[in-house]
Amino acid sequence: MSAPVQVRVFAPGSISNIGPGFDALGMAVAGPGDTVVARRIPGGRTEDQRQVRLLGIEGDGGKLPRVAEKNTAGIAAAAVLAMAGSDATIELELYKGMAIGTGLGSSAASAAAAAWAVNLLLGAPFTREQLVGAAVQAEAAVSGRHGDNVSPSLLGGLVLVRSLDPPDIVRIPVPAGLMVVVVTPSFELATRAARAALPRDVPLRALVRYSANTAALVAAFHSGDLALLGRALNEQIVVPIRAELIPGARQVMAAAVAAGAAGSSISGAGPSIFAFCDGRRGPGVASAVALAMIGAFRAAGAAATSIISPADVPGAREV
Amino acid sequence: MSAPVQVRVFAPGSISNIGPGFDALGMAVAGPGDTVVARRIPGGRTEDQRQVRLLGIEGDGGKLPRVAEKNTAGIAAAAVLAMAGSDATIELELYKGMAIGTGLGSSAASAAAAAWAVNLLLGAPFTREQLVGAAVQAEAAVSGRHGDNVSPSLLGGLVLVRSLDPPDIVRIPVPAGLMVVVVTPSFELATRAARAALPRDVPLRALVRYSANTAALVAAFHSGDLALLGRALNEQIVVPIRAELIPGARQVMAAAVAAGAAGSSISGAGPSIFAFCDGRRGPGVASAVALAMIGAFRAAGAAATSIISPADVPGAREV
Repeated sequence: MSAPVQVRVFAPGSISNIGPGFDALGMAVAGPGDTVVARRIPGGRTEDQRQVRLLGIEGDGGKLPRVAEKNTAGIAAAAVLAMAGSDATIELELYKGMAIGTGLGSSAASAAAAAWAVNLLLGAPFTREQLVGAAVQAEAAVSGRHGDNVSPSLLGGLVLVRSLDPPDIVRIPVPAGLMVVVVTPSFELATRAARAALPRDVPLRALVRYSANTAALVAAFHSGDLALLGRALNEQIVVPIRAELIPGARQVMAAAVAAGAAGSSISGAGPSIFAFCDGRRGPGVASAVALAMIGAFRAAGAAATSIISPADVPGAREV
Repeated sequence: MSAPVQVRVFAPGSISNIGPGFDALGMAVAGPGDTVVARRIPGGRTEDQRQVRLLGIEGDGGKLPRVAEKNTAGIAAAAVLAMAGSDATIELELYKGMAIGTGLGSSAASAAAAAWAVNLLLGAPFTREQLVGAAVQAEAAVSGRHGDNVSPSLLGGLVLVRSLDPPDIVRIPVPAGLMVVVVTPSFELATRAARAALPRDVPLRALVRYSANTAALVAAFHSGDLALLGRALNEQIVVPIRAELIPGARQVMAAAVAAGAAGSSISGAGPSIFAFCDGRRGPGVASAVALAMIGAFRAAGAAATSIISPADVPGAREV
């Protein structure tokens, strides 16, 4: 089978920092995501020509840098070429299908789409897990070195980043019918600013409680115990700090649970807030939760939009 | 059904602090354990008479205090009576079937056996999970407030202590055929001394890695991925410190893995060291691992004994 000369790849956005899964747990969500068109350019190139060229970006409102070396799609593409030892020249077009700075892994979706696209152009030498390192390299350039958005964008579903050195990515099954509601208010947070507000050190006692909750959360996803999922989702180190930076955050999370969600927390650095719902209780539950969350944001002065997604969305894929 | 007047209850020992499950993960093991005989004494008592009386202890070499208020069996028995609001008078006999200070939850086995015994004398008003709080109260008096030994001693199998306030105990399934090898050298460590050597604070970055490993370990038990289990078991905060206090510890853990174990770590505060083995590869694997671990302890100057146990041993039970 010969590799294609051009591919169009979509990668979904994702919720990350799922409760006590700071920098460790992420889940792909349906709806928002980025599309990368990648083309292999035949022939060699002169020394002053770039190996990866970013022809253009649409849908970002002009916010993102137009050079490949400063864009996560371009960096991830170059990293995959380097992994493969390939001398190929690649042109990229990036179509942003999601807003920037909402806590849904916008930069990661670009990186995941580009990494998967270049992998396809090379004849797919790498597994999705093997591409995580290249996408993390891209994330590190813009929002910190973490893999909890690029991993679900690449692999789909719920993913645990056990380690980045080297990458060790664990797929976690989700209970049948689990739905995720994501509500995004109409203001923007800079990830670096939100990250800077976190403590440098934590007491060992807090680590014990934290890791027990992370483990309980993964056990709940495995066993389908949504009551346990709700108890374990309650994070006490990062979320309280970030909630202070998001007007209405506490009320939105409380409204989600009051409306029937199993649990709710902040996605990434925010301001998006997600909630898990038991879809087996009927489609109305997720809708009611979404409306309650939007209403709580409105009461805090922010217009908001919602996504209702299954918890087992596929990752980066040719479209 | 009337409650019995006398019961004899056995509770197994347990490995705890399983890799990155410090104060959170414990597993019951076959072999060592404590037996409590509990009797309900009819009639009232005068004000100067104790509600729980410890008639005697056998098998401890005279090391344990002979008063009920200072022994974990006595404290747990009193706590269960208090939970039930019972005025009953109880006599206890304690038969220690395991050494003290080996890292296998000796004080916890006494507490679990007594808690279950008194529960039976009262007509079993409480579930095993509900008794954890009473047993933890007893543990707190002698070795610190943690539930990762009393919980498996009470419930059996592999248990995650998500929280102690209030107790939230999660049973974790284990893969079919999983075996645990426990090797105990012939010297003793005081739990309080070993605990005092730990850092008070850890970097947030370390918490992220730690909790991701705890979650990966639980995922591995759920999915039966023993390679992942081995990678996740590698703890980097507590185990390296405690390994320094146990002559030969690093060599014993390395010997276990070299002999075919999926992973190895220190049980509790040590000096016992455990290893997980895939029993589906035949009974010889666990034996070979045990011999290799004993050999490594011997090379470090310590005689050692071994236990080979399934990973799904039942908890406290009438015998």
